[in-house]
Amino acid sequence: MQLLKDRIIKDGKVLNNGILKVDGFINHQVDPMLMDECGKELARRFKNCGADRILTAEISGIAPALMTARYLNLPVVYARKNKPVTMPDTVYLTIAPSHTKGNMVELIVSPEYLPRGEKILIIDDFLASGSTILGLVRLIQAAGAELVGIGTLVEKYFESGRALLSKNGTPIESLACIKSMENGTITFTEN
Amino acid sequence: MQLLKDRIIKDGKVLNNGILKVDGFINHQVDPMLMDECGKELARRFKNCGADRILTAEISGIAPALMTARYLNLPVVYARKNKPVTMPDTVYLTIAPSHTKGNMVELIVSPEYLPRGEKILIIDDFLASGSTILGLVRLIQAAGAELVGIGTLVEKYFESGRALLSKNGTPIESLACIKSMENGTITFTEN
Repeated sequence: MQLLKDRIIKDGKVLNNGILKVDGFINHQVDPMLMDECGKELARRFKNCGADRILTAEISGIAPALMTARYLNLPVVYARKNKPVTMPDTVYLTIAPSHTKGNMVELIVSPEYLPRGEKILIIDDFLASGSTILGLVRLIQAAGAELVGIGTLVEKYFESGRALLSKNGTPIESLACIKSMENGTITFTEN
Repeated sequence: MQLLKDRIIKDGKVLNNGILKVDGFINHQVDPMLMDECGKELARRFKNCGADRILTAEISGIAPALMTARYLNLPVVYARKNKPVTMPDTVYLTIAPSHTKGNMVELIVSPEYLPRGEKILIIDDFLASGSTILGLVRLIQAAGAELVGIGTLVEKYFESGRALLSKNGTPIESLACIKSMENGTITFTEN
């Protein structure tokens, strides 16, 4: 998606530790018009996937998942990293390593919002190592639901996430797929 | 806003500890069409406030703030509760008590997204004790910016938040203002 790629080139910064800083428009400050366009495009790509519900992870997955859900007219659930007092005693919980924080985080979903047998579309901001999304996949499996697709804003194609997640033929779509960030220069794949 | 009040009556639950559980449509699962309508209505109420930017707090403020920002065509910033590696070394940070978690949380904003002299509109999901929103107000003051309004989805009118926050004449709008939840029955104020 050219609009997002242009914005990453304009405002994204490659930090020394290999992290892509996009906190001016995706994950601290959000550009709502850009996010709306991204949601529209992800919804277009997954309009025939038959999803009953969208699943994402707090915090930075919420904006793209909400905008996609709005265009697909589907409820969106965000896995919590802390169990709030409003959650029932029994939940689906998995742990996943956090690339940007360097520790393990919990991903928790209330069973009432992930019913057995439903078709679930995962939307998140980043696909890099795939560890967070793989955690969401485990929650879907625990619930006896079915994963029908994975959509992200930004993909780091040079990390192992896509290979890890596409094993079972799950459709994966990313709006800006980064081939390389070497020497701080961002280049995208052809598609 | 009748649509939100009707949904609270239909799907909201008053828990024993005085917490209103709305995690089926606001803060775990989100109904994107309802959230879109709420954002549209908050944008209508604040269309003349002159805001340059919207500020909210992660996690459950993100959805209503994003939808309001979309209708006002303003950037939206969510205060982080943990400092990510992408943030600069020097930030605005305040601590606020968390009503639902029973501990203190940090609220952190990167100075580049809260510029001195700007007019800031705060949007959040709940106004109850007002402690989280008061934390956001302190961040705005620390930045030398100006608070021009506070909008929330749900207000617990019987708590002290409104009295605390309206001292300086700041306009406060809530879409569903709850007068009482006694014996588990939710009643709204007239307006």
